[in-house]
Amino acid sequence: MAASIKDVAKEAGVSIATVSRVLNDVDVVNEETKKKVQEAIKKLGYRPNIVARSLKTQKSRTIGIIIPDISNQFYPEIVRGAEDVANIYNYNIMLCNTDLDPDKEMEYLRVLKEKMVDGVIYMSNSLEPEIIELIKSLELPVVLVETTDKANTFPSITIDNDKAAFEATNYLINKGNKKIAYIGTHEDAVHAASYRFSGYKSALESNGIEFNEKLCFFGGLKAQDGYDGINAIFANKDVEVDAVFCASDELAMGAINALRDIGKRVPEDIDVMGFNDIYSASIFYPKLTTVVQPMYDMGSVGMRMLIKVINKTELAEHHFVLPHQIAERNSCKK
Amino acid sequence: MAASIKDVAKEAGVSIATVSRVLNDVDVVNEETKKKVQEAIKKLGYRPNIVARSLKTQKSRTIGIIIPDISNQFYPEIVRGAEDVANIYNYNIMLCNTDLDPDKEMEYLRVLKEKMVDGVIYMSNSLEPEIIELIKSLELPVVLVETTDKANTFPSITIDNDKAAFEATNYLINKGNKKIAYIGTHEDAVHAASYRFSGYKSALESNGIEFNEKLCFFGGLKAQDGYDGINAIFANKDVEVDAVFCASDELAMGAINALRDIGKRVPEDIDVMGFNDIYSASIFYPKLTTVVQPMYDMGSVGMRMLIKVINKTELAEHHFVLPHQIAERNSCKK
Repeated sequence: MAASIKDVAKEAGVSIATVSRVLNDVDVVNEETKKKVQEAIKKLGYRPNIVARSLKTQKSRTIGIIIPDISNQFYPEIVRGAEDVANIYNYNIMLCNTDLDPDKEMEYLRVLKEKMVDGVIYMSNSLEPEIIELIKSLELPVVLVETTDKANTFPSITIDNDKAAFEATNYLINKGNKKIAYIGTHEDAVHAASYRFSGYKSALESNGIEFNEKLCFFGGLKAQDGYDGINAIFANKDVEVDAVFCASDELAMGAINALRDIGKRVPEDIDVMGFNDIYSASIFYPKLTTVVQPMYDMGSVGMRMLIKVINKTELAEHHFVLPHQIAERNSCKK
Repeated sequence: MAASIKDVAKEAGVSIATVSRVLNDVDVVNEETKKKVQEAIKKLGYRPNIVARSLKTQKSRTIGIIIPDISNQFYPEIVRGAEDVANIYNYNIMLCNTDLDPDKEMEYLRVLKEKMVDGVIYMSNSLEPEIIELIKSLELPVVLVETTDKANTFPSITIDNDKAAFEATNYLINKGNKKIAYIGTHEDAVHAASYRFSGYKSALESNGIEFNEKLCFFGGLKAQDGYDGINAIFANKDVEVDAVFCASDELAMGAINALRDIGKRVPEDIDVMGFNDIYSASIFYPKLTTVVQPMYDMGSVGMRMLIKVINKTELAEHHFVLPHQIAERNSCKK
């Protein structure tokens, strides 16, 4: 027979209301009494009815994580970082895959609210006005991870994608490359990755290299897009390429496979640079030179920010920018 | 102002108790009344208080998923399959990473019970008697995915790992290979993957090839283990190898990288076979010839089984075995 709140009160020599105050972190209990109650809880192995408490406190110690797709290699590490921090603070996570479908995103937000989650980590390509309004009306604490909100409505965490892409392109230029192709998303796309195209263009400009649209391929961020991108760019017989900057590692892998198939060696003939540093970037052959986006930290710091928001602790920064770096491996010349 | 249960009752012209019976799927309501209530719910956009209902029905329409580590490439697809089916049946999933730590597994089981999850998808290397007892005492419906329970206590879903490894080894033998190395877990390991070693040995035996322990390396299932495995096996100067059977794709990738570093070409000099068919298996160079384990289906069928168990529907099979196949790509000779 499991211990009840009554048993705890009896053991600690206090009233049931006092035990309840301790459980709900109400501040009026003095430290000594609090300690007695906590000891009684431990001794009896008492575990409060969390669902009943949720109803009373409107808190479930559960956090929703809304992501596009856990089977995309980019997200698992972010989710892992978020869950590890949630676990430290005694929260559990509810995982929701949306495939970037706004209707699914809105439905999940409503369901998470009904299940009384304490907050939501939100990752998406877009943050349409309709969704911003919904989050506000549901009064859900939200932190955006790797997602930006142009109006800066919600706290968020990203790296500086523009600067990182600028540095990556500069890195390729410093190796003596001048004809640098770009494979990724267009800057008009509502997506954190879209800043990578503007960083690429700025780097060309600041080095006096003319931008050439024929060297660019805009599509998704998957390996197949990288493969298709190389074939599309090289379909133009006049084109010369000595390096490729890819807006994701998967793109870089697909691009390298396509280059191999058309008889070009990486890095001997062409340098290829990736972005993100997913797990397989350093298992791939050649190991990818890439921009390291600290995915685990993005999840863990994002979760830490959300817990602060839930506890109404002020954030040091509303928009937190994590540092990036370039990992020099074997897909660019030494 | 959100619609209340009162508004629904008024709109449908029935009592609040009747609305409640419809919401809780109690069978005594006649079809016509049920339809009227459902229409009123739809018209008013009424959304019941799920947490209050959980407390009453002891059901939360939430399912726990206990896995070793979402950032391991093997699990995301399983989780995605499970969540997709959960979503169809209006369940949400709570994701728990355990790193195979039995204490963490037990703590999660207790917390999930407190949060009144309706059931648990359980993935682990082991299923210690202590954990089996805990699941029983918590009265949690559980389905094991890619995990076996020797006493067959809980419903489970796996592929036939022994048979799949037998076929993979046979495939290598049929290519004319005789000196076939094995990199993976030992058969004594409490792990679904351990059956892969016994399948490997049976295939050698049934082809009259003598088992040679010097050709085996036992460790983890990560790329680094594959890299180390090749170096350990080739450290023995007398050893000759013409093929390697790896108990995971990551092992195969690490092994291929190690072979390249010691000047052996895959597949020209040595065939390498993987296991699982993770996403990057067909992006890697060379594309891996591997045993396809239907990970997405494992998650989706496992979730379907669990929902049946929750609804007390009899399962067609207590232990469900999904079909596997061999994907012929470029890491073995044609």
